[in-house]
Amino acid sequence: MTYCVGLLLDTGLVFLSDSRTNAGVDQISTFRKVIVFEKTGERALVLQTSGNLAVSQTVVNALRKRALEADAEPGTSLLNCENLYDAARLVGEALREAYEQDAEALKRFGLDFNAAFILGGQVRGEVPRLFSIYAAGNFIEATPDTTYFQIGESKYGKPIIDRVIRRSSSLNEAVKCALISMDSTIRSNLSVGLPLDLVIVRRDQCRVARHVSIDADNAYFATIRGMWGDSLRHAFAHLPEPDWATSGPGRP
Amino acid sequence: MTYCVGLLLDTGLVFLSDSRTNAGVDQISTFRKVIVFEKTGERALVLQTSGNLAVSQTVVNALRKRALEADAEPGTSLLNCENLYDAARLVGEALREAYEQDAEALKRFGLDFNAAFILGGQVRGEVPRLFSIYAAGNFIEATPDTTYFQIGESKYGKPIIDRVIRRSSSLNEAVKCALISMDSTIRSNLSVGLPLDLVIVRRDQCRVARHVSIDADNAYFATIRGMWGDSLRHAFAHLPEPDWATSGPGRP
Repeated sequence: MTYCVGLLLDTGLVFLSDSRTNAGVDQISTFRKVIVFEKTGERALVLQTSGNLAVSQTVVNALRKRALEADAEPGTSLLNCENLYDAARLVGEALREAYEQDAEALKRFGLDFNAAFILGGQVRGEVPRLFSIYAAGNFIEATPDTTYFQIGESKYGKPIIDRVIRRSSSLNEAVKCALISMDSTIRSNLSVGLPLDLVIVRRDQCRVARHVSIDADNAYFATIRGMWGDSLRHAFAHLPEPDWATSGPGRP
Repeated sequence: MTYCVGLLLDTGLVFLSDSRTNAGVDQISTFRKVIVFEKTGERALVLQTSGNLAVSQTVVNALRKRALEADAEPGTSLLNCENLYDAARLVGEALREAYEQDAEALKRFGLDFNAAFILGGQVRGEVPRLFSIYAAGNFIEATPDTTYFQIGESKYGKPIIDRVIRRSSSLNEAVKCALISMDSTIRSNLSVGLPLDLVIVRRDQCRVARHVSIDADNAYFATIRGMWGDSLRHAFAHLPEPDWATSGPGRP
């Protein structure tokens, strides 16, 4: 399994991914699920992947290969396409090529062609944008009402994002919230695990401001995990008691 | 969809169920998902249901019919079986009878035989017990390490239970926590909705201490929903800020 979340704020973007990959609980490995395509000052694109690892690696390899071609036609790679929408389309096309190549063979083994991507970032001349791309290669874009996209094991970590993050939240708040959301997910799903990849893109910089690998030794993550657990227990203890459990039978 | 949680504490049991049933988002109804089988002072059994409503109603009807038979053989109904384990077995058998009756016809329409039940309570002479019963009619029992079972849309509301509830928690704490857990679920999944059914069984009373229907007008639920949201935002605001979002590029 996987948990990735990408957040779009007024002041930029925050991406957080776990790195656990498993084929059954007896085969667990660490694979990074975030890939950056960057031309410093001109564009910074961040791709997060989930689903069948062979599928997502096929797609990422194809996208990387095109980005590295010195004589690539304009509009054919994530490093030379005109805007984020075209970049999402290129990712979708790479997914469809992978489908053509592998889906039939996967089917023979009873396996689904299973993949989902988040793509976000900024190309100079545009505002920051965020896309969620499906296995079929189609995609949706975050609108002013959409603050984030999740892929993989999304449910455990969703309520806290819904409660605290708005477009106007700061990048710091988004980082904190993504880490709390990830903490709830890691506690509930063994197949989501450390280390984490955190990528921050500040608006109009068109480069990655921070790319941090967070493991069990990371002091900040350890601090807020502990504090958050304590705060929840404290807040819970201070909620008023119901009266129906202490009095006799009947309706309150 | 459905969300039901049953909690087993040192001092008794707490059951909370939503009541929303939907066949697509355009067909939403209210059906109670909790059924009590009680001989006051001798036994109190609480059954929570999820899955295909026709399946769970078939099972509940069969169990009710047997419980109402005046001349029932000992050990054949939830009101005359010897212990909670036998009660869980009777629910499993009713599920298997429903499967024999309906599964083939459901399959012809591409529908799964889909059901999951929680059964808990106390029969005089035993300690309180809690079971989770699967569609196949097999089941598991809560051990000293198990504080609760969930059925239906379980993920959104799981992290808070894991963080605050232990076997030694009070019934009041379990009620509060179940309501907070339900609130997170209702906020995230449209197909889980009010009114809620709350049932409390206190240890060694062998009767239902409280059976409360909670709708949008319930003052206590409204109060803790609001307070909990405020507390989370307050706790979140007081977590320390990460330093990597405010300084320059590179690793912290």
